[in-house]
Amino acid sequence: MKKIIFSTLFSLLLTHVLIAQTKVEKWDIYELTLNGPSTGNPFVGTTFTAHFTNGDKVYEQEGFYDGNGKYIIRFMPDIEGTWHYVVNSNKSDLNDKKGSFVCTAATKDNHGPVRVAEQYHFKYEDGKPFYPFGTTIYEWPFQDATTKKQTIETLKSSPFNKARFLVVPPYKEKYIEGPLKITEFPFTGTNKSNFDFSKMNPEYFKKLDSCVFQLRSLGIEADIILFRPYDKGKWGFDMMGQEVNRRFTAYIIARYAAFRNIWWSLANENSFIKNMNDEDWDDLFKLVQEKDPYRHLRSIHNADVIYDYSKLWVTHVSYQYYNVVKSPTGTAMARDIYKKPVVNDEINYEGDIESRWGQLTGEEMTFRFWNAVIGGGYATHGESYKVSPWISYGGKLIGSSPSRIGFLRQIVESNPVGYLEPIDHFFENNMAGKEGKYYLIYFGKDKPNKWDFVLPKKGLAKGSKYKVEIIDTWNMTIKPSDKTFEVIPMPGNNYKFIDKNNSSIKLPSKQYIALRIFKVSDGGKVSVDDKNEL
Amino acid sequence: MKKIIFSTLFSLLLTHVLIAQTKVEKWDIYELTLNGPSTGNPFVGTTFTAHFTNGDKVYEQEGFYDGNGKYIIRFMPDIEGTWHYVVNSNKSDLNDKKGSFVCTAATKDNHGPVRVAEQYHFKYEDGKPFYPFGTTIYEWPFQDATTKKQTIETLKSSPFNKARFLVVPPYKEKYIEGPLKITEFPFTGTNKSNFDFSKMNPEYFKKLDSCVFQLRSLGIEADIILFRPYDKGKWGFDMMGQEVNRRFTAYIIARYAAFRNIWWSLANENSFIKNMNDEDWDDLFKLVQEKDPYRHLRSIHNADVIYDYSKLWVTHVSYQYYNVVKSPTGTAMARDIYKKPVVNDEINYEGDIESRWGQLTGEEMTFRFWNAVIGGGYATHGESYKVSPWISYGGKLIGSSPSRIGFLRQIVESNPVGYLEPIDHFFENNMAGKEGKYYLIYFGKDKPNKWDFVLPKKGLAKGSKYKVEIIDTWNMTIKPSDKTFEVIPMPGNNYKFIDKNNSSIKLPSKQYIALRIFKVSDGGKVSVDDKNEL
Repeated sequence: MKKIIFSTLFSLLLTHVLIAQTKVEKWDIYELTLNGPSTGNPFVGTTFTAHFTNGDKVYEQEGFYDGNGKYIIRFMPDIEGTWHYVVNSNKSDLNDKKGSFVCTAATKDNHGPVRVAEQYHFKYEDGKPFYPFGTTIYEWPFQDATTKKQTIETLKSSPFNKARFLVVPPYKEKYIEGPLKITEFPFTGTNKSNFDFSKMNPEYFKKLDSCVFQLRSLGIEADIILFRPYDKGKWGFDMMGQEVNRRFTAYIIARYAAFRNIWWSLANENSFIKNMNDEDWDDLFKLVQEKDPYRHLRSIHNADVIYDYSKLWVTHVSYQYYNVVKSPTGTAMARDIYKKPVVNDEINYEGDIESRWGQLTGEEMTFRFWNAVIGGGYATHGESYKVSPWISYGGKLIGSSPSRIGFLRQIVESNPVGYLEPIDHFFENNMAGKEGKYYLIYFGKDKPNKWDFVLPKKGLAKGSKYKVEIIDTWNMTIKPSDKTFEVIPMPGNNYKFIDKNNSSIKLPSKQYIALRIFKVSDGGKVSVDDKNEL
Repeated sequence: MKKIIFSTLFSLLLTHVLIAQTKVEKWDIYELTLNGPSTGNPFVGTTFTAHFTNGDKVYEQEGFYDGNGKYIIRFMPDIEGTWHYVVNSNKSDLNDKKGSFVCTAATKDNHGPVRVAEQYHFKYEDGKPFYPFGTTIYEWPFQDATTKKQTIETLKSSPFNKARFLVVPPYKEKYIEGPLKITEFPFTGTNKSNFDFSKMNPEYFKKLDSCVFQLRSLGIEADIILFRPYDKGKWGFDMMGQEVNRRFTAYIIARYAAFRNIWWSLANENSFIKNMNDEDWDDLFKLVQEKDPYRHLRSIHNADVIYDYSKLWVTHVSYQYYNVVKSPTGTAMARDIYKKPVVNDEINYEGDIESRWGQLTGEEMTFRFWNAVIGGGYATHGESYKVSPWISYGGKLIGSSPSRIGFLRQIVESNPVGYLEPIDHFFENNMAGKEGKYYLIYFGKDKPNKWDFVLPKKGLAKGSKYKVEIIDTWNMTIKPSDKTFEVIPMPGNNYKFIDKNNSSIKLPSKQYIALRIFKVSDGGKVSVDDKNEL
């Protein structure tokens, strides 16, 4: 019997330490490495799966071939206690290997994978809300060590908790020659004439492992993108055919599903990939559903033709539709259409490049984030300055929006009512919160000099008292109004409540002002919406 | 053998004239009446279908029982020439009846049923574009003769070419007693305690026949609504159970499908009907698909929960989502999501009632219509003044929007390029037309004092010349600018063309201004969008 080699997560950092893993914390990775045949093509025709059991709970986790005769299974235990496993394989060297380990409690910053919560939002598996404030660093895995390190340092002090990036680089001259020349590709071979799409290249993926792991260490979700256009007919990664697409997808799932911070983004701008159609995408979604034991979030990022995000296997909308975030209405509407969380994953980028999708001011980027949030959804940042093309390579952030996005994130995360929902949103379009308890009102590009205290009646009760704070979303200040407001039904209006003294709030006649309104005491009977009336 | 009775369309006007129909024009109704058994319950268990054949073309048309032993088949021939038919029935009195008639050419105002055209639009079957400018008269079939006559007179001189109304009245006190007391219901019986949902009431439907026919005579599409909430637990028409729902639907199809002006609207505010769920609606849609030989348009009108209009059996979106029409973006987005025509069938109503959905000014109603059109879709009018509740009963129109809607309709119908599509709509949101040829630009509530001649580059060629007209959408004036503009690429901008002299147009600093721009001469090579860039 061949020796079973246990390795720890250090292997992800490319340091193989051959010690037996006997303990692993919840939602961390238990990694099992077996020696097996290195002859033939282990990527095709080898079945290699382990059943992990803990009481009634059973997971089937596929393994992957890591080169040099090494076969790896990565498993993410999700309950504490002793897990037993047994390996099934059609290779006798691998078959029937057994073992066990103990899963211990999750430690401080480990909250598990992110799930959909309350239909339109997200939470970690331990119940902690997760509000995505993502950024975009498409090609960061393919940069030099210095840039990658700088990217990690930048992310550490940024407000971003999700990063979108490509598993396969776009075709660019800089990756063909010069200091960034790419020598390892996802498949064996070095160019179109000698790629062997039947053989993955483990060395390529070991580098990617490290990227995903580093993000996990920072508490950043890795929204990894499996397919992309941008091939220019040079490498052929966008036209491999569905059999290869499936094998590629299955390999990535086997390799990365055990990372708790993984989100599956099947493609970037999928409708620009002319060799794949909706049937192919549906098929890959179903494959992910079948192969990922942990049910990580699944979406796809559209270009000019919008994929039908209402399909059952899509967990959340991953939009590219810039007009959606030019007011709060679009995101609220997308929620009502798809009945899922809406993440506006591309809303143009802050920057100064020639392409118009990369010319936003920091003000406009911040404005679009606020609109997404007031619409009950989320947005993703990107920065594309000529001198610092963060969306492509990572490195430094030099824009003015990240700090404002961080300020918004604080406001969202510190609100007292949990997830923000659009309020009275068939008629209103500038407020979110929870009726009667908390309101976030955003004036966008309007420059009001005052705000009359008027709120939609739902959830309000005569006599309840409210405090208001004035938020300058650009200058990042929050100033409390010294008044307390007591609400009564608005005379002659069946839909609104007002302050009993008809009070107003003075506002600074500037753009990008918001209000937040907290309930400070209870009143009488709460109003509810009339039935059967929009 | 019983005598076969032929009746003409006069029967629809409640005048039975017993002459044999030997000729009928294309898309008119060939009506065949047979005598059969009047015992038992002819509404359940009787099969009664005719096959109509003309060369290779075969239609199967179900008949319906019309009371007093009369069985009727209504057929809409769609090609000229001799049609032969044979009746199949499980009642021997009806079975194997045969005959033929000649279908003649359509006459002047008969263009056939309306179909979807160019994905987002409509045309009559003869190819003439149909631009829906609808109105709403929910309960007009249930009013007194004077009001109904007045409604028809009003429609005759209105801009509206589609009318939405209910097949079953809402429960209201006025229909229980007093001059409008309803004595005929869709089913036999007079109240909840004695309705027999297994038996339709033909007398009820004869009155409805006349309503659909009168609209047809005016060239108005009848967007008939099969189910509705608004029952208040009094009659039970919203909780009959799916078997009855299906029989009711099949009866209506058999009775009305041969009217070329029919659109099927499965429900109004379907999500307010608590006893029916999406599965029921899907099932009814499939039933309509199966039973309607002529494939009339099919949709359903949502309330708080949006039905998935991307489902295959839905031909067009029939939206109630007010924010969609507060800018052109919403309609354009709905097109991109559903990939179908978008008709905003409820956008609130012009009026002064206490309910906020009936408080629009004429200006706001007109504004919302323009937004729908600039978004590449359509809208439906309604009027709800206290003194003149048109949306409920018909009668007179007293609002200020209909004439402006008529003005917009003229502009839409007289444009030189056919259907209007949103232009450069991932970035722009105020223009529709056809790139390079025709632009309709709408400024909505903005009050610009000038417009710099700047257009998105797609379709433009250096040296092409354009004329501009300034439209006051409220005062219904169109004033040509005396300048001619010659376009060149905008220096330093890769996305725009401008006038070579940097010319502007002076505008009146008022709300609700639009421009229309016509090409008057050709220039050089036309620009197209860069590939793979949004």
